[in-house]
Amino acid sequence: MSARYPAHRFTVTARDSASRARTGLIETPHGSIATPAFVLCATRGALKAATMDDVRRLGASVVLGNTYHLLLAPGPERIASLGGLATMTGWRGPTLTDSGGFQIFSMGHGGVAAEIKGNRSGTPAATLIGIEEAGATFRSYLDGAVKRLSPEISLSVQAAIGADLVVVLDECTPFHADRAYVERALARTFRWSRRSLAAFDAAGGMGSAGPQAVVGIAGGHVHEDLRRAAADFVNGEDFFGHAIGDSLGGTREEMHRIVAFQAPLLRPDRPIHLLGIGQVADIWNGVAAGIDTFDCVHPTRIARHGGALVRAGTDGAAGRDHLNLRNARFRDDPRPLEEGCDCPACAAGLSRAYIHHLLKVDELAGLLLISRHNIRFMMRLMDTVRAAIAAGRVREEAAAWGASLG
Amino acid sequence: MSARYPAHRFTVTARDSASRARTGLIETPHGSIATPAFVLCATRGALKAATMDDVRRLGASVVLGNTYHLLLAPGPERIASLGGLATMTGWRGPTLTDSGGFQIFSMGHGGVAAEIKGNRSGTPAATLIGIEEAGATFRSYLDGAVKRLSPEISLSVQAAIGADLVVVLDECTPFHADRAYVERALARTFRWSRRSLAAFDAAGGMGSAGPQAVVGIAGGHVHEDLRRAAADFVNGEDFFGHAIGDSLGGTREEMHRIVAFQAPLLRPDRPIHLLGIGQVADIWNGVAAGIDTFDCVHPTRIARHGGALVRAGTDGAAGRDHLNLRNARFRDDPRPLEEGCDCPACAAGLSRAYIHHLLKVDELAGLLLISRHNIRFMMRLMDTVRAAIAAGRVREEAAAWGASLG
Repeated sequence: MSARYPAHRFTVTARDSASRARTGLIETPHGSIATPAFVLCATRGALKAATMDDVRRLGASVVLGNTYHLLLAPGPERIASLGGLATMTGWRGPTLTDSGGFQIFSMGHGGVAAEIKGNRSGTPAATLIGIEEAGATFRSYLDGAVKRLSPEISLSVQAAIGADLVVVLDECTPFHADRAYVERALARTFRWSRRSLAAFDAAGGMGSAGPQAVVGIAGGHVHEDLRRAAADFVNGEDFFGHAIGDSLGGTREEMHRIVAFQAPLLRPDRPIHLLGIGQVADIWNGVAAGIDTFDCVHPTRIARHGGALVRAGTDGAAGRDHLNLRNARFRDDPRPLEEGCDCPACAAGLSRAYIHHLLKVDELAGLLLISRHNIRFMMRLMDTVRAAIAAGRVREEAAAWGASLG
Repeated sequence: MSARYPAHRFTVTARDSASRARTGLIETPHGSIATPAFVLCATRGALKAATMDDVRRLGASVVLGNTYHLLLAPGPERIASLGGLATMTGWRGPTLTDSGGFQIFSMGHGGVAAEIKGNRSGTPAATLIGIEEAGATFRSYLDGAVKRLSPEISLSVQAAIGADLVVVLDECTPFHADRAYVERALARTFRWSRRSLAAFDAAGGMGSAGPQAVVGIAGGHVHEDLRRAAADFVNGEDFFGHAIGDSLGGTREEMHRIVAFQAPLLRPDRPIHLLGIGQVADIWNGVAAGIDTFDCVHPTRIARHGGALVRAGTDGAAGRDHLNLRNARFRDDPRPLEEGCDCPACAAGLSRAYIHHLLKVDELAGLLLISRHNIRFMMRLMDTVRAAIAAGRVREEAAAWGASLG
């Protein structure tokens, strides 16, 4: 426990014998998070197609707000005056905000080419005007206004938003950036990180809803020596936790390799987040590498396209990680989305045929049911992950979920 | 209790002393309905922006499916094979279906001119090709296919859908129809009603999900002698309950007058439904005239436009029955939608400012929160109505809700 973060604590509670997987507990002023955990994305202060009431009932322990979006609307002052993110939204539990940089940098470089992480929020991104030592300048997609984001501004906006865990501003470099560019960006991210900690201390470490704790980002693109340098840097600074960020390569395999390389280099006494990643195989691979928390819009985004997450190999999934309920093959299918699932749709015995019907006639209830299923699916997955670690059976359970560990 | 409907029962439990208002209990094979009750519209087998799980949690006791829409999709055979409406949708409680005629007739006459009831489902209606003694012919709005609806077809479709309460096919005449037209249509509705009962008996009174009971429609347009003749007719036939239908005039006042005239003419031992009506003042007026059940899409439709139902006179409602949460006046309003409301949004202390924000950035959670508020608002209203009747205070409570009884 650091003197900088007296209101936060991370404890490792169990370790897998055959991998680096571990269970733990992150304690924050708004409650505790059993890890490994999946962080649900409440981009603009709400999940897609679910209320915080729903989310709580589905077993979630932590949600993430996007600083970039919340900065533009409803704005940090308004969030602060409404009691901060957890109170304003009615979530009340632990929250995390990102730095706001991802939405600006990831699209600002002329689009994301062959990147494993897409635009995490699935929404229009900013237009990047320039990146300088002081910070970045961009154009709001809402009204075209020119805005600035610096390490200090990001921390101050995140303080107003009032999340329990805040993230330093880094420059997230695109997959197609050359090594020299990545090196310069990484060096600047180190300087920005120190400025972030200084700004945090200057504000007394307090957000609008209580004490906060800072997460440092470990980047380094696809280059192992830079990933190592970034790990050494964050290990030496007084962060509460770490997040693996920056470009994670061009393929899922490369991403797994980078995570498996860098996570073990990070201090074991701090929680490790993997930014923007969270499909089933990624989670098993990340957990085996020592990742404690994940966030990803995949479960709620795919729901909007009629996709219900299911275990690999489920009949009707056609080799994917989901059923496409818009498909006519489900028109007369009386089975639930997934056998044994305890989500509100499956527990009520609702059929694929009924949900297919709702989607075909554009009834929002179809989206609501699939969203709840997908959220619950992720929560059940994380329950299974934690139980597998406690039982020392990560490799076997991962295989049962169709994930082969590298 | 009629020998035709051994599985259904209606009992009056209390009466108001100063009006015709009464409380009662409608017992059906899928459960009981405390009356006066508000029937939520699950047009295509789902409420707008709420799942049946939500609806149950919000205190609803009965939902209505639209036979016209369910006939087109997913189709009566499919609903029957999925266990009937209550099972397919996961609602499990009492259900009611209409005859399917309203969507065909109301728009088929060249649009609804100055009618107090709009297109109840808020969705594209059929194109009416013709009405003959045998039945009506229309074109599906889904695929243009020519379809037929007759008293027998309606009952048979409703049997497959499997609601607890089914409604006879009537010709719903438009407000601008002349008296001679209305007389001919009413006489045909009488003949169709007798054919409906015969078809019901021929099928043994059984739907796909158990025994059903038939509701007869009392029409008569704005003409008191025809309203009286229709009441006499339904009173003499062996219906389980009655519904006041047909054109209810061109203004809210005329509608209240027609209901206050016809409801007392209907047999007091059968429940009386008022078709397609359900704003607050309408409910108090209807209840005072002896109406037992109401259905209306208003609460869920207005939610889609950002309207949250509130008591008359609530600050911010600008003389209407709802707050328009899209209005910039709510941008910084920290108050809940309605003081004292126990809906999930108000109980969680969510602010008008937060919900305004969600609507402005097109987050579906805003619609979800308002929909749940509006449904709960109607349920609380009906709780108040029943308590007022039991306490003999209908007139006083109606006034407190801003409804003046004629």
